[in-house]
Amino acid sequence: MNVHGTHYRTIWPDPHDPGIINIIDQRLLPHRFEIKPLHSVEDAHRAIREMMVRGAGLIGATAGYGMHLAAMTADDGQIREKLAEAASLLRSARPTAVNLAWAVRRVLAAAEELPTAAAIRQAAFAAASRIADEDAQFCQAIGQHGKQLLLERWEQKGRKTLNVLTHCNAGWLAFVDYGSATAPIYAARDEGIDLHVWVDETRPWNQGARLTCWELEQEKVPHTLITDNAGGHLMQQGLVDLVIVGSDRTTHTGDVANKIGTYLKALAARDNDIPFYVALPSSTFDWNLDNGSEIQIEQRSGEEITKISGLTEDGRMETIAITAASTRARNDGFDITPARLVTALITERGVVPPRAEAIHMLFADQCSSPEHHIR
Amino acid sequence: MNVHGTHYRTIWPDPHDPGIINIIDQRLLPHRFEIKPLHSVEDAHRAIREMMVRGAGLIGATAGYGMHLAAMTADDGQIREKLAEAASLLRSARPTAVNLAWAVRRVLAAAEELPTAAAIRQAAFAAASRIADEDAQFCQAIGQHGKQLLLERWEQKGRKTLNVLTHCNAGWLAFVDYGSATAPIYAARDEGIDLHVWVDETRPWNQGARLTCWELEQEKVPHTLITDNAGGHLMQQGLVDLVIVGSDRTTHTGDVANKIGTYLKALAARDNDIPFYVALPSSTFDWNLDNGSEIQIEQRSGEEITKISGLTEDGRMETIAITAASTRARNDGFDITPARLVTALITERGVVPPRAEAIHMLFADQCSSPEHHIR
Repeated sequence: MNVHGTHYRTIWPDPHDPGIINIIDQRLLPHRFEIKPLHSVEDAHRAIREMMVRGAGLIGATAGYGMHLAAMTADDGQIREKLAEAASLLRSARPTAVNLAWAVRRVLAAAEELPTAAAIRQAAFAAASRIADEDAQFCQAIGQHGKQLLLERWEQKGRKTLNVLTHCNAGWLAFVDYGSATAPIYAARDEGIDLHVWVDETRPWNQGARLTCWELEQEKVPHTLITDNAGGHLMQQGLVDLVIVGSDRTTHTGDVANKIGTYLKALAARDNDIPFYVALPSSTFDWNLDNGSEIQIEQRSGEEITKISGLTEDGRMETIAITAASTRARNDGFDITPARLVTALITERGVVPPRAEAIHMLFADQCSSPEHHIR
Repeated sequence: MNVHGTHYRTIWPDPHDPGIINIIDQRLLPHRFEIKPLHSVEDAHRAIREMMVRGAGLIGATAGYGMHLAAMTADDGQIREKLAEAASLLRSARPTAVNLAWAVRRVLAAAEELPTAAAIRQAAFAAASRIADEDAQFCQAIGQHGKQLLLERWEQKGRKTLNVLTHCNAGWLAFVDYGSATAPIYAARDEGIDLHVWVDETRPWNQGARLTCWELEQEKVPHTLITDNAGGHLMQQGLVDLVIVGSDRTTHTGDVANKIGTYLKALAARDNDIPFYVALPSSTFDWNLDNGSEIQIEQRSGEEITKISGLTEDGRMETIAITAASTRARNDGFDITPARLVTALITERGVVPPRAEAIHMLFADQCSSPEHHIR
């Protein structure tokens, strides 16, 4: 994606020093665009845990590069133990996104049975880079497949402005490039489809208000911010033509874990006969779970709800309390949208109904082997 | 309700000077409890428009007292014209809450055909006071009727903690006393029912986070703040036993206009087989509309979404921008929950299914006459 006219990925190795991995501190957006260097697996863990980086694909890529940093900084004799420690540290960072564990496993598998520390380091870096590259390629492919759905709906509508609703940020900032839910939007825009995006604010972390709006602004895609409460009403008014969201984990049966609130939008889409699409690279599939209710839902601090940061009129970043000090909050990070409410999944290999048979057919190479999760 | 141990209504005439009507500036809660005097109908209009006061019942009571202030400040010879002007000014303040127009009509009717300015002033004050008194009485009665529903559900559950979810603030602060959705909660608490309330934050104005949590804290009712996104997930987890919300306008066919986001919770309650109740005094019925889609939905400034106020760590009130300056927001104040998603309405005369026949039977005196809206 272009930021102020320059192309960036959301994570990249320093071109002069592979011991430095650069990220964008997403906590400061849209107020500041700040690049932060990661030097160690502990840095990578902290970046994921504290949500400097977030989003399924980017968490996976950061975990991959975190493993690479662990290999880089380990003594030759201890490199295997250090990689095992790094794997368990990274896995503990956030529980819901499946890409994290998937990326860690993938680097471990690449480094396995290699004879020397140098070979392990090289393999870890290559695997991490491949994870990042594939993430970008897959999102681009999701864009091409998803674009067709938008195009059809736009033609159905007599080429009147197509209104797309999205929740959270499944955009460039959630992946390495392009995004999942936003990729079809960018591809459709490039195709000349006249579209407008309703952006759910996405409390409490405001990924929609802070990140998706900022991205769409950079890419000059017309958009309007709404509260999370508004989507159902806009659907009732005929102001939403389709919904696209991302996913943090999707069971091989089509149940979708995504940012809290997604389920409510899926219910409203169903009640108003509006297509509800979930865009995801196959790294987000969990081949082991049959039922979304088995997915562990992250609980975060209530202070993410009771306090909020932003820019004062004179340009300072300030954190304020929006409740009484005595107010306690519960903060579940994700919810489960059952497959019955999902119209289709948009993957890098094409659009697929949210049903085990169809998903298995499209990803036979991944779901059938015991090591299905490692491509 | 008690505030710091003293009983308050949310609006009251100064005991020494009927030319002053006191309100609580709700924009400052929970950070500051500030009483503000209204001296004129213009003050009352501004208080409603700028949301120093809000909520169906309190908007009605403020409009009633606003008419009284117009009568108080008018010259004898111009009192009829001034009342007519006041009526149209007040009606323009906010379009969705039906109580506003209802209260204005009621004071006008009381003042009609009276021979002298003094008689008009007396009648206007008496009518305004009656509106406020009835609002408090009706909310108390709603509490008694609603309490039975909570009690039944609590018994069903084997007297385990009853989890009630509410959206926005249909509490004491939204009425003159007791509240509508909160009245059954307070009455159930007094009855010894072990209950806990999930409070929806209610973006963008955060009535739940700021007002309902503050009220429940004053009344020592156990409660937890959640984002508007979370309710569906909590229902899926079996953590919600019933939902009670208020209403700003309910058609005589049972369609409910309430704070934006209510519809999403009603959908989730239906999907999880959870009772969804709407508590309202009959002043909130619109006897003229057959279909909720005919209700005018207020659109407010997008800045209510992009900016937010709260308390800094060193105790200053501060307003911050939570989006980029270029971000535009759409801010619909209400949505419509169709009657099919409502389990029952809790009114001052009892619990009634959301169907025209049943509502008409219970309120035959109000719905049948051409002047049905004026009791």
